[in-house]
Amino acid sequence: MATAHNLPQTMTAIAISEPGGPLVLKPERRPVPQPGSGEILIRVRAAGVNRPDVAQRTGAYPPPPGASDLPGLEVAGEVAGLGEGVERWRVGDQVCALAAGGGYAEYVTVPAGHALPVPAGFTFSEAAAVPETYFTVWHNVFERGGLKAGETLLVHGGSSGIGTTAIQLAAARGSRVIATAGSADKCDICLKLGAARAVNYREEDFVKAVKEATEGKGANVILDMIGGDYVDRNYVAAAEEGRIVQIATQGGAVASANFARLMAKRLVHTGSTLRPRSIEFKAAVAAALEAEVWPLLASRRVAPVMDMIFPLKEAWRAHERLESGEAIGKIVLDVA
Amino acid sequence: MATAHNLPQTMTAIAISEPGGPLVLKPERRPVPQPGSGEILIRVRAAGVNRPDVAQRTGAYPPPPGASDLPGLEVAGEVAGLGEGVERWRVGDQVCALAAGGGYAEYVTVPAGHALPVPAGFTFSEAAAVPETYFTVWHNVFERGGLKAGETLLVHGGSSGIGTTAIQLAAARGSRVIATAGSADKCDICLKLGAARAVNYREEDFVKAVKEATEGKGANVILDMIGGDYVDRNYVAAAEEGRIVQIATQGGAVASANFARLMAKRLVHTGSTLRPRSIEFKAAVAAALEAEVWPLLASRRVAPVMDMIFPLKEAWRAHERLESGEAIGKIVLDVA
Repeated sequence: MATAHNLPQTMTAIAISEPGGPLVLKPERRPVPQPGSGEILIRVRAAGVNRPDVAQRTGAYPPPPGASDLPGLEVAGEVAGLGEGVERWRVGDQVCALAAGGGYAEYVTVPAGHALPVPAGFTFSEAAAVPETYFTVWHNVFERGGLKAGETLLVHGGSSGIGTTAIQLAAARGSRVIATAGSADKCDICLKLGAARAVNYREEDFVKAVKEATEGKGANVILDMIGGDYVDRNYVAAAEEGRIVQIATQGGAVASANFARLMAKRLVHTGSTLRPRSIEFKAAVAAALEAEVWPLLASRRVAPVMDMIFPLKEAWRAHERLESGEAIGKIVLDVA
Repeated sequence: MATAHNLPQTMTAIAISEPGGPLVLKPERRPVPQPGSGEILIRVRAAGVNRPDVAQRTGAYPPPPGASDLPGLEVAGEVAGLGEGVERWRVGDQVCALAAGGGYAEYVTVPAGHALPVPAGFTFSEAAAVPETYFTVWHNVFERGGLKAGETLLVHGGSSGIGTTAIQLAAARGSRVIATAGSADKCDICLKLGAARAVNYREEDFVKAVKEATEGKGANVILDMIGGDYVDRNYVAAAEEGRIVQIATQGGAVASANFARLMAKRLVHTGSTLRPRSIEFKAAVAAALEAEVWPLLASRRVAPVMDMIFPLKEAWRAHERLESGEAIGKIVLDVA
C-alpha cells in the first residue's frame, strides 16, 4: 500500500453522539481509516453537506451495512493512500469523490472509481459541492428520466443544491427548464441559472404555470423531492409519456393520487436513492459524469452554487443552516 | 376501390340506444361503412367483447374523436373491400383485426395495418378473441413492462381475457407467472395455462404469496387492472427495479400509496390505454405480434381461452355475462 509520508494514526471526525438535533454532531478522535483493495484514502480538505446527512443525524436514515457511522457523502482533497489494485490515482492527486459515509472527517476511504479529478480551476470547497448532487441529478434526470434536448424539465426545489444543479445541467444540454422555489429571491436565482420560468410556489400554482409555459402540453420530465400532495399535481403537470422521478419525499411519503391519469397519459413514475447503490453502479455514473459533465464544469458553463462554508468542527451550524430552508445552493465544511 | 360482389347498402349493427345497463344495446340498421385510404372493409363473422365496451355502454368511456359510435374493438371475418393504397390484403382474405369501434356489426372498416391473418387452424370466433387482449398484453407486459425470460410476472385478474393471455404469453416466453383470481376454479385455470402459482385473493394475501414464491424478492413486472388499494400492495409485492403496468383501475382510480417505497425500490409505475393510440403505433404492435406471437398461436402453444359465444343480436347477454364476473376467458359475438 502506497501512502503519504507522515500519515497520522488518528484524526478529527464529526460523529453523531446520539440521534437528535444539530448539536448532537460532535468532534471526536477516530483512527485514520485504511484503504481496502480498490480503494483510495483521501486527505479531506472540504466536505459537502446534504439532506441525507440530516436524516442520518436524526436517526431516520441509518447508514447502509458496512458503511462508516460518520456522516458525510462527498468530499474533495488529496489522495493520501492507495489500496491494492488502484491504477488510476497517485498519492497527491487532487480529487473529489462520492463517499458511502464518513466525509465529515480529516480522512476518508472511497472506492477508486468513485473519485474524479478536481475540475480545472475549482477550489476544494467547490469540488466538494459537486459529487452528491451531480451523481444524483445525472442519474435521475438524464439516465432514469431520459430527459432529451428540446424537452421541458420541471424541477421542484429549484434553489436547493439538487435544484440548482438540475437547472444548469438541463439548460446546458438544450432542455427548457421550469423551476419552483419558495421566494422571489430564490426564483431569481433559478432564472439566472438558466430556467426559462420560475414559479414561486407560495404565490402561484405550479400546475397552472407549467401548462401555460408549455401550451397546455405539460412537462416531459419532473424531478421531485417533495412527494405528498405534489404527486398528484405532478401527474396533472406532466405531458403525455412524461417521466416523474422521485428523489425524496420531504412533504410526506404516503399520498393519494389518480392512477387513471397516470395510465391515460402513459406516465412513468419512478425514483431512486443513491447511497445504497452498488460500487459498480456509482463508478458507471462517475464515468458518465467525467465524459459528459466535467468539460462543462471546467469551462464554468455549469458550477455548483455555493451557499456557505463552515469549519468542520462547526458542522452543527451547517445543519442548522440546511434545516432553516434559507440556503441557496450548497453548504460545505472546510477541513483545514 | 375493390369490393366483394353484392355488397349490401345497409347492415345490422348493435348500437348503444342510451347510456345504461346491458339492455340499451339494440340492433339497428346502419349503412355499410366505406373503407377510406389505407383501410379495409371487413365482413365480420365474429366480434370480441371487452371491458371498454361496457364502459362505453354506461357512458363512462366515450369513443375517441372520429371513431364509430358503435361498440366493438376487435373482429374476425373476410376482407370485403379495399381502400386506396392497400397492398397487403385481397378481397376474401381471412383476417382478424383491432377496430377503433364498430365491431358489433356485420361490416367494419379498419386500417389495413391493424389486421392480421386468422391464425392457422383458428375459427373466426377464436380469431376474434385475439386482437384486443394480445395487443394490450404485448405492449404493456413486454414493451412497456420489459418482461424478460427468467423474470417473474404477477398478473391480476388471471382468469380474464387479459389475464389468460398474459399467463400464456409470459410462460411461453420463459417467465415465471404468479396469477391472482377470485375462486378455486379460476385459480385452476391459471395453473393449467402455465402459471407457476395461483392466488385466490379472497382467501390469501397476494403480497405474502408473491414474497413466498420469490424468496422474498418480489415480482419483476406486475400487470394490474384493479388500482385502488392494489396500488400500494403492488409496490410491496414488486421486486427492486420492478415495473408495475396499470391497464385499468376497476377498483378505483384514486388511491393512496407509499412513494418512498417506490423510490427506495426504484420501481417504475406506468400504464397505458390502447384505444386512443395512433394508427402507426397500433400497426407497429401488430407487426411485432405477427413476428413474435403468431407462430405461437399457429402451433397452439398459446390460444385464447373461450368463455361463451352469443349471437350478435344478443350482445346484451354477452355484457351481462362479462359484468357477472363469472366469465373465464373471452366472450365473443357470432355474426352469421
